[in-house]
Amino acid sequence: MDKVQEKGAEYFWPQPMMSNVAITLKRIREDLKTETEGAFVSFFLEPAKMKRSSTSLRVRLPALVLLLEVIIVTLYTFFVTYDDDANAKLQNNLTKPMENSLYRDYPFFTDIQVMIFIGFGCLLAFFRLYGFGGMVFNFLTATFAIQWAILVQGFLQFYKEGKIHLGVINLINAEFACAVVLISFGAVLGKTSPVQLLVMALLEVPVFAITEWAVLTYLKINDAGGSILIHLFACYFGLGVTFALYRPCLNQGHAKEVTSYQSDILSLMGTLFLWVFWPSFNSALTLKGDDQHRAVLHTFIGLSASTLTAFALSAMLNKNGKLTMADVQNVTLAGGVTVGASVDMMISPAAAYMLGMIGCTACMLGYKYLSPFMSQHLRIQDQCGIHNLHGLTGLISSAAGIVAILLASEATYGPSLYEIFCYRAPQEGDPRLEELQRLIPGLQPGLGRSAREQALYQVTAVFGTIAVAAVGGVLTGLVLRLPYLASPDDESCFDDELFFDVPPDYDCMAGQAGSSCVNTETKLGDSKD
Amino acid sequence: MDKVQEKGAEYFWPQPMMSNVAITLKRIREDLKTETEGAFVSFFLEPAKMKRSSTSLRVRLPALVLLLEVIIVTLYTFFVTYDDDANAKLQNNLTKPMENSLYRDYPFFTDIQVMIFIGFGCLLAFFRLYGFGGMVFNFLTATFAIQWAILVQGFLQFYKEGKIHLGVINLINAEFACAVVLISFGAVLGKTSPVQLLVMALLEVPVFAITEWAVLTYLKINDAGGSILIHLFACYFGLGVTFALYRPCLNQGHAKEVTSYQSDILSLMGTLFLWVFWPSFNSALTLKGDDQHRAVLHTFIGLSASTLTAFALSAMLNKNGKLTMADVQNVTLAGGVTVGASVDMMISPAAAYMLGMIGCTACMLGYKYLSPFMSQHLRIQDQCGIHNLHGLTGLISSAAGIVAILLASEATYGPSLYEIFCYRAPQEGDPRLEELQRLIPGLQPGLGRSAREQALYQVTAVFGTIAVAAVGGVLTGLVLRLPYLASPDDESCFDDELFFDVPPDYDCMAGQAGSSCVNTETKLGDSKD
Amino acid sequence: MDKVQEKGAEYFWPQPMMSNVAITLKRIREDLKTETEGAFVSFFLEPAKMKRSSTSLRVRLPALVLLLEVIIVTLYTFFVTYDDDANAKLQNNLTKPMENSLYRDYPFFTDIQVMIFIGFGCLLAFFRLYGFGGMVFNFLTATFAIQWAILVQGFLQFYKEGKIHLGVINLINAEFACAVVLISFGAVLGKTSPVQLLVMALLEVPVFAITEWAVLTYLKINDAGGSILIHLFACYFGLGVTFALYRPCLNQGHAKEVTSYQSDILSLMGTLFLWVFWPSFNSALTLKGDDQHRAVLHTFIGLSASTLTAFALSAMLNKNGKLTMADVQNVTLAGGVTVGASVDMMISPAAAYMLGMIGCTACMLGYKYLSPFMSQHLRIQDQCGIHNLHGLTGLISSAAGIVAILLASEATYGPSLYEIFCYRAPQEGDPRLEELQRLIPGLQPGLGRSAREQALYQVTAVFGTIAVAAVGGVLTGLVLRLPYLASPDDESCFDDELFFDVPPDYDCMAGQAGSSCVNTETKLGDSKD
Repeated sequence: MDKVQEKGAEYFWPQPMMSNVAITLKRIREDLKTETEGAFVSFFLEPAKMKRSSTSLRVRLPALVLLLEVIIVTLYTFFVTYDDDANAKLQNNLTKPMENSLYRDYPFFTDIQVMIFIGFGCLLAFFRLYGFGGMVFNFLTATFAIQWAILVQGFLQFYKEGKIHLGVINLINAEFACAVVLISFGAVLGKTSPVQLLVMALLEVPVFAITEWAVLTYLKINDAGGSILIHLFACYFGLGVTFALYRPCLNQGHAKEVTSYQSDILSLMGTLFLWVFWPSFNSALTLKGDDQHRAVLHTFIGLSASTLTAFALSAMLNKNGKLTMADVQNVTLAGGVTVGASVDMMISPAAAYMLGMIGCTACMLGYKYLSPFMSQHLRIQDQCGIHNLHGLTGLISSAAGIVAILLASEATYGPSLYEIFCYRAPQEGDPRLEELQRLIPGLQPGLGRSAREQALYQVTAVFGTIAVAAVGGVLTGLVLRLPYLASPDDESCFDDELFFDVPPDYDCMAGQAGSSCVNTETKLGDSKD
Repeated sequence: MDKVQEKGAEYFWPQPMMSNVAITLKRIREDLKTETEGAFVSFFLEPAKMKRSSTSLRVRLPALVLLLEVIIVTLYTFFVTYDDDANAKLQNNLTKPMENSLYRDYPFFTDIQVMIFIGFGCLLAFFRLYGFGGMVFNFLTATFAIQWAILVQGFLQFYKEGKIHLGVINLINAEFACAVVLISFGAVLGKTSPVQLLVMALLEVPVFAITEWAVLTYLKINDAGGSILIHLFACYFGLGVTFALYRPCLNQGHAKEVTSYQSDILSLMGTLFLWVFWPSFNSALTLKGDDQHRAVLHTFIGLSASTLTAFALSAMLNKNGKLTMADVQNVTLAGGVTVGASVDMMISPAAAYMLGMIGCTACMLGYKYLSPFMSQHLRIQDQCGIHNLHGLTGLISSAAGIVAILLASEATYGPSLYEIFCYRAPQEGDPRLEELQRLIPGLQPGLGRSAREQALYQVTAVFGTIAVAAVGGVLTGLVLRLPYLASPDDESCFDDELFFDVPPDYDCMAGQAGSSCVNTETKLGDSKD
Repeated sequence: MDKVQEKGAEYFWPQPMMSNVAITLKRIREDLKTETEGAFVSFFLEPAKMKRSSTSLRVRLPALVLLLEVIIVTLYTFFVTYDDDANAKLQNNLTKPMENSLYRDYPFFTDIQVMIFIGFGCLLAFFRLYGFGGMVFNFLTATFAIQWAILVQGFLQFYKEGKIHLGVINLINAEFACAVVLISFGAVLGKTSPVQLLVMALLEVPVFAITEWAVLTYLKINDAGGSILIHLFACYFGLGVTFALYRPCLNQGHAKEVTSYQSDILSLMGTLFLWVFWPSFNSALTLKGDDQHRAVLHTFIGLSASTLTAFALSAMLNKNGKLTMADVQNVTLAGGVTVGASVDMMISPAAAYMLGMIGCTACMLGYKYLSPFMSQHLRIQDQCGIHNLHGLTGLISSAAGIVAILLASEATYGPSLYEIFCYRAPQEGDPRLEELQRLIPGLQPGLGRSAREQALYQVTAVFGTIAVAAVGGVLTGLVLRLPYLASPDDESCFDDELFFDVPPDYDCMAGQAGSSCVNTETKLGDSKD
């Protein structure tokens, strides 16, 4: 087939275009030859060949969505009831309404809502011709992921007496699961159909929820800000998916893979919403009181430090000494992830500041050097650079968390030590427990772990999470390559016209953006005839 | 009068303009002839003839606004004082500052503020050339409506010892009244001047406040989320207004009645802000504690269900199998309204989910089939489709509320039954009251209604509210047709240039949008001859 | 030096460029001659001559930022520890987690975060070609100012036992200091490099913090909403800076000093975020309970009144009777400042309303008449009109505060009088104190000031603050004129291309905006010859 194409190119096309095409084809052929994986490679190149398949959502999307809704509503009917704090029957004269858990959780819930729907939505709308896609698919995916996570996490974490007990706290947990999906979405932004995204959420949520449940139940790690469970999981799952969805053509750049003045501003607004409410995200699931207070402080300090550093490095690494909007939009947020794993500990404000600086530096260097390398040599096309913002920073955060655990002592924490590091309290029956309980009435028995032991559990959690996420991601990516999921062809990537009725001014915008990557390829095909 | 105008047109105007005018007048005359309603119709067509009247705001707007402000400040001076919780004199050593009602109400107030000013503002800015109008007139109308509602609702609901007592809770109530006005505004968006909008708010707020007060005082209905009092009232009032302001020309489409890429994104941001904070809206006025907790859960679930359904139906009903932004912007929100009337009851999460799906389906079909029908055959030009998003869903919500009331029992609610459905508690003096009070100390006497009786009160409230709203709306619309209210002519509808100093790039945007409604008609006419 | 440059221009440069340069130089020389101030003027005109100096941020920005970060992190390391409410060691079994100060402060903190980062950011993005600059430099400056203020205010206000004690309340205070810097930034928007802005923040924060500390410690004034300390200080500091940075060329208008349709909408969104959360800003630092409740009410009422008034005056003062977006974006907010100094007092809702109307009127007239005058005759180029929105309104607010203090009596306030006006409680040892303490147990001794005495202290604070701010501003401005701070030349003002890698569509936008300031001058010059 290649041969035929080449021939067409050589004989019927005007010279300059022909030579472009010829060169492209030659490169692809050479790629194929130099690769030793043979069949494996051909499978990975397949998406490029599925070009002409329909992307109409008319049947696919409604069929999938309505099926999912029927399943969800059925499960809700049989398995979901109200949390004690939302159940009218369990209230009596002694209930103090203002002590309802709603008032502890709801303020954090609304902040996270803004982050998920507006923060992520705007941030992902940075492509010039993919603003609808960024915001709308974020909206769709998030809404589905939350509903699905309510059920999956419900069965794992909130299930008693045959029912999932639903309160605002479940919604917060589900929004964390949703954040995981949205971060992974960042890796494949613009290259996936809404059907694929729903399937991704459908698969990712359970893998995440089981990992989360297993890690929290059996390893009992400290990870208040979710650096391990949320950011590392999301990152490596997303990389797995994008690895499986590798599109060689996009490595040569894509004409629509650009921003516009307005889309850059919109994306920055997303960043600012995430920045502003990130302290709520990192502290939503900590213990109440001083722990949550510290989580807010550390997140704010970490973000501040990483923001300043991002500006410095952005100007320093730019060849014209100018600022790059992509850095301002992404790298400024690195500190929020980096403080995550130790966010509720007594690490000191200065340490939070340093974590922000270090995380930001790693993230920036990642964008500059690692992402292009991964894209060119590892077949990992990480569209939003989630490996930099969530992966590298998550690893640093995990390491910092381990150091903080090793350094934690009663001298610094007082009796609170056994609350934050609850596994360190002596086990039931241990005589040391009684001794401690005389000093700290109400102390709960723990697992009697030492700090060093805990460090090993943390390390296990980090590598375990990464492994499960990566494997889950690759398998999910392979599922996404099934036919009938309306995968966009290369040419239509980053283009709202494929899935949206676009307004009249879209044409002239698209015109300005110039011709696209695969245009070239398509013309190839035409010339065959 | 027509004759004189026509003559003038024929003899003194330059040819091209003359022919435009002549043809337009001819069409109007023909319309008048073919119509059988005679005088009635001629009154309703009048706006089209007032085309050349001035729309300068230089005198009108300041005169009206300053007059209103003087009235408001005078009423404030004589009749408004502080709520007990905001009155320094009433605090003493026993007052616990943190138990001030501020801390119960303010978080919900700020959320609703965002919805009113940013959510509605952006949502209404979806027209390409009417972004200023959407956001700015929303700002103006909302600000006035709230001030006015503080006074009107104050006299009706918060008046004691000759004074309106003002606290944050009054502001929340006033913002609900304001939401009513803004929803009605949706029906006439782009076709009304700011002067007309202020007059509309001036008239709508008292009609609403009296209806609200009468229904809550005498019928004592359940409607925590305001599906009846807010959404149905606002919808039918708005439809009444737009019926009275019918513009035949707009039924042939208007060149400026289009969106742009940026305006679609802006509008979607409005949707997302409304979506995110809707749980606060629906729960702001419930009882504190588990009731409010359930209201949050149900609203979230209802919105989620309607969002997924909206995506499915949008793709299904689109002939190219693409998504339509208008659906994503509007239909996704249907679930928030549909759960409204029963939002604080024990309807079960599954029921909230189903309400979301049903409401969304009704709303979507309304946009697809009912709105065009109403516009073509009923002279109801519902610009934003409020009848779909607030009317149909409000009706479904009302019905669901009645079912929930009929199903409510002590088995499900426990003693809370007599709090949520307070009218069901036995009346003062009834021996059953004492009996119950032995079990539930502190139970307040109610009205001794049965669930079936209450269902009748709910039905009465629904139809009463719709009737008052529709009549009030039509009368208000007739008032808006008075001269000197700066009503835009047909051609200048949906166009910011009429009421704003526009920036230099406006011209080229307007140029792209092409020629407008009246021009199109004219050309039609030309080709006929 | 001038001579050398001129010579180069004459002999080695291509003709058109040469003539531009020659003419520019000629004009500058002529300016210098016609001016009588001699050396003083030449210093003030110097920036115009530094036109060709490099504005690359590649070395400058990283060097400055990283240096500042090292200083900050060092100070954090040695001097910053946790607030008692964030310190794990100080918690015990009696600590009630939900009574942690976090829950009192955090909701106000997040609201102010939105104002600082999103409200200010969008508001300042109103220039067509300076949207990145407005939002991004706001982000950078705010982030730095907060970190720096945490330290400076920490040493002055939160320092005990050799450490700054850090809690969310410090962050709120630091965000107020940051608001000061951002308001001042408004005066020089578009005319300063990020390096200059950081230096400005570096200098302004300590001057502000010391003024704040001195006024609060020694004068003990009432200024809950910060009209004096925040708005007046920020305004006169900003005017001082812009006075020192005077650019004569900009008085003839600048081609890029225009808005676009999208930038106007973006800026309005900023306004709306500020408007919506302003009650939180004005009430964040009041006493808890009824005081904070009143602060919320007054701010809301004041803003509402000023919004309506702004619409009225905008239409009235516009020659076409249209609305001006700049008025809607700025003047609507005047009421929030005007109620500031008396925001927690029992001034009555009507008074808050009147303050809103008066403040708005002053602000509007300032924009119309005072700003052009200051720009043409006083060498004060106030880019965003901060003198109108923060200066004039701040003065009115201060006066209103004094009146409210003079009118305050036990009849109105009850025993709370001695809490809000704590300086009025009798001094330790005064027999009146014991008497009062019998009536009001727990009354703290005060300073025994009378209302009239306090009025003098307030006046002192107003003029003292203005004087310190103005002098500090001018000196800071002179520092900003040092070389190597990457000050933009006149032509590159209000232009994102100078400091940002701009997206591909920027060119055509810039093309539409037409030729810039210096070109115009050149043409002027051409026609003269």
